[in-house]
Amino acid sequence: MARNTKVAADHDAPPVTRTLAKFVATHPSRGWSDAVDHEAHRTFLNWVGCAVGAARHEAAQAALDAAAMLQPAAQAAVLGRAERIDMASAALVNGISSHTFDFDDTHLKTIIHPAGPVASALLALAEVTGASGRQLIDALVLGIDVSCRLGNVMYPDHYDRGWHITGSTGQMGAAAGCARLLGLDEGRTAMALGIAASQPVGMREQFGTMTKPFHPGAAARAGLLAALLAKHGFTSSPKSIEAPRGYVQVVSTKCDWREATEELGSRFEISFNTYKPFACGIVIHPTIDAAVQLRARGVRAEDVERIELKVHSLVLELTGKKEPKDGLEGKFSVYHGFAAGLTFGRAGEGEYDDAIVTREDMVALRRKVVATVDDSIDEAAADVTAVMRDGRRERVFVEHAIGSLERPMTDADLEAKFRSLAEPVIGAGRASNLIAACWAVGGAGSVAEVIAAGSAA
Amino acid sequence: MARNTKVAADHDAPPVTRTLAKFVATHPSRGWSDAVDHEAHRTFLNWVGCAVGAARHEAAQAALDAAAMLQPAAQAAVLGRAERIDMASAALVNGISSHTFDFDDTHLKTIIHPAGPVASALLALAEVTGASGRQLIDALVLGIDVSCRLGNVMYPDHYDRGWHITGSTGQMGAAAGCARLLGLDEGRTAMALGIAASQPVGMREQFGTMTKPFHPGAAARAGLLAALLAKHGFTSSPKSIEAPRGYVQVVSTKCDWREATEELGSRFEISFNTYKPFACGIVIHPTIDAAVQLRARGVRAEDVERIELKVHSLVLELTGKKEPKDGLEGKFSVYHGFAAGLTFGRAGEGEYDDAIVTREDMVALRRKVVATVDDSIDEAAADVTAVMRDGRRERVFVEHAIGSLERPMTDADLEAKFRSLAEPVIGAGRASNLIAACWAVGGAGSVAEVIAAGSAA
Repeated sequence: MARNTKVAADHDAPPVTRTLAKFVATHPSRGWSDAVDHEAHRTFLNWVGCAVGAARHEAAQAALDAAAMLQPAAQAAVLGRAERIDMASAALVNGISSHTFDFDDTHLKTIIHPAGPVASALLALAEVTGASGRQLIDALVLGIDVSCRLGNVMYPDHYDRGWHITGSTGQMGAAAGCARLLGLDEGRTAMALGIAASQPVGMREQFGTMTKPFHPGAAARAGLLAALLAKHGFTSSPKSIEAPRGYVQVVSTKCDWREATEELGSRFEISFNTYKPFACGIVIHPTIDAAVQLRARGVRAEDVERIELKVHSLVLELTGKKEPKDGLEGKFSVYHGFAAGLTFGRAGEGEYDDAIVTREDMVALRRKVVATVDDSIDEAAADVTAVMRDGRRERVFVEHAIGSLERPMTDADLEAKFRSLAEPVIGAGRASNLIAACWAVGGAGSVAEVIAAGSAA
Repeated sequence: MARNTKVAADHDAPPVTRTLAKFVATHPSRGWSDAVDHEAHRTFLNWVGCAVGAARHEAAQAALDAAAMLQPAAQAAVLGRAERIDMASAALVNGISSHTFDFDDTHLKTIIHPAGPVASALLALAEVTGASGRQLIDALVLGIDVSCRLGNVMYPDHYDRGWHITGSTGQMGAAAGCARLLGLDEGRTAMALGIAASQPVGMREQFGTMTKPFHPGAAARAGLLAALLAKHGFTSSPKSIEAPRGYVQVVSTKCDWREATEELGSRFEISFNTYKPFACGIVIHPTIDAAVQLRARGVRAEDVERIELKVHSLVLELTGKKEPKDGLEGKFSVYHGFAAGLTFGRAGEGEYDDAIVTREDMVALRRKVVATVDDSIDEAAADVTAVMRDGRRERVFVEHAIGSLERPMTDADLEAKFRSLAEPVIGAGRASNLIAACWAVGGAGSVAEVIAAGSAA
């Protein structure tokens, strides 16, 4: 029986709550490699770009309209907007907008999108408390570590049950990060983790609705509240995570406790964070990547006679729409992905506008793509040959797409993605300032420059 | 396998989300018997008393201190306090304080404490929107119906897994009630239920900590937010409750769908709400009830030679502390319960003060109680005989304690309980006004009188 398994598992459960609380409260600032610290900045930059990019989306608007009914004080910034609201609402709205395009970051082992819940809570809190940029980055690394480690403990069972793991572990990372930012001691950090443990957010049934991006936002808000309560003496169980009727065993039958604490302080989960280069499902990415590479070799749509695309059967099952009618359908079309990659050299949110998806040249180019199934090709790969009008053939085989752990996006790639998201909202000048502010935040005295550049004029 | 069972169950799942949304949005105002409407007022009165009574508790204080960091606008009242804060925080704090003494209401079939999440959200929202008292009571009946029906669907499996069912169904009732109060249509009410469905709150590991009363508070806040978002166009799945990866199947393997919709609009779960007469575990209640009855017959502590108490073995297992050292231990002492009942005619929060529990006459009276186990007596009963110094014997057999469904507290009992909670905090005059305002609320043009009398001067 599932219930008995869970309770039995507790006999072997180490004191995870206490161990993580001590780690979060006492691990030295920047107590990790330069690579980890740089990954934290990449994570932060990418998250800011996503939040700014969706700042005018109807989901962000609805959340702001709802927050306005709370008569919030002008306390914290909403990225990409001029409004200032209370920090709990700011955490909520930034968490929503940063996940709205499904274009943020991914901890591949657990498919957690870790920055949304953690960074959204931290930026709001850091602005209000006047924390340094270093405190923000430290809290981001530690908070993401807590979320992803707990994800490792429970994945895949927890996800298979129907939890949207980003929101249902994110509140723990947000609480951990905020506790760190507030300088809570080990005991109060454990209380913060406990209060957060009672607030997992998100069911997968909500995929395809605004409530999906609501999950990281609500997790950010819940974790922030947990840390504020703990700061003021609110109590919770010191065994909240590992107890038989505590967080993990209530929401998962898999309880691989070692994942919570093994190599704590030496292995950082943020090292395994990845960033989506294209605004669509991951199985299309190798094909788009190949298109972008063909474009770089000088292949132009008008010279193409035919595109021979070989992919795993799963790719066509999930994304086989040859004639997408609008942007949303375009996201499920490997054909449109290819056409966007070859035409624009990218496939960001802009390349999924209805107007682009239905453009005549895009329709024509998609029709030139002949896809065939080859299950000897990995799901994460693509074999693409452009047959030119003059008979010339250009072939690209993508084993690991850009954005994978094996072929991470470069910092320049991240900046280009950032600009594609931020420039339509805040303009090119502010986008450049914001990129610079994100890279520099770990050494900044406060988050003021991020806030200044990241808000709409 | 649990997972397969859950998914299979969906094939038979009726459209619960849509059905409940339609019910909440369209059931006529006061579309129930006078008895149901009176029960709603009793529920409301009892909840207000509990919230006022704990308004100065350290849990309420910590929550208010945390909310203050959100720089909330002076938008809604905190019962028993002078502070005014934003309505989401007011819902949170009133939800916490009303459950802090574990002295609120109980839907016995599910052991849900329904008013905390629902009334806390509604009072804050009603104050801000200027809703009528009738709208408040209607929303209370409907919101509690949704919480308790979903509890019926899942209890006991959901509770056995470790969920604190008050917080993990309360967000649904709060969302339903707030949607009703906001006048949302059926479609938007379904969206509100969906957003709430992603936010169940509370694990049982937190029992004994402040995070237990946090659960109804957080559920109130979550449900309120869900309704505000839905009002402004935020979307969720129209099958959030019943889908395979929706709310019920993610948090419960038991899915008795009929409970959600059977006799909808004719059977109201608030009819089965009960109120705790004594501020301790329910197994002590028959003994205290007997003591109060003996007192009413003229039995006085100083005339007592010996008390012969016969109870089920479970009673002594759980509450067999003969010499409690403080108020908290007193709550686990059937001996102290008896002594309080005979001495004061009640056992409210005041009778569990450290100073009372350790008072010499209480110690002496407890020592006169000779408890014996008799498993032929029901756990919910007590057989008590007072043997007087003059040899006279007075016997009371309590089959159903006061506060049970079989012997509900009278309105006068509820008022006495209310006074014991509220008078130490807001004084006798305001407590009387507040009682009057609660009874009259269903006919009042607004909740202004409840707010005026219920706030601290």
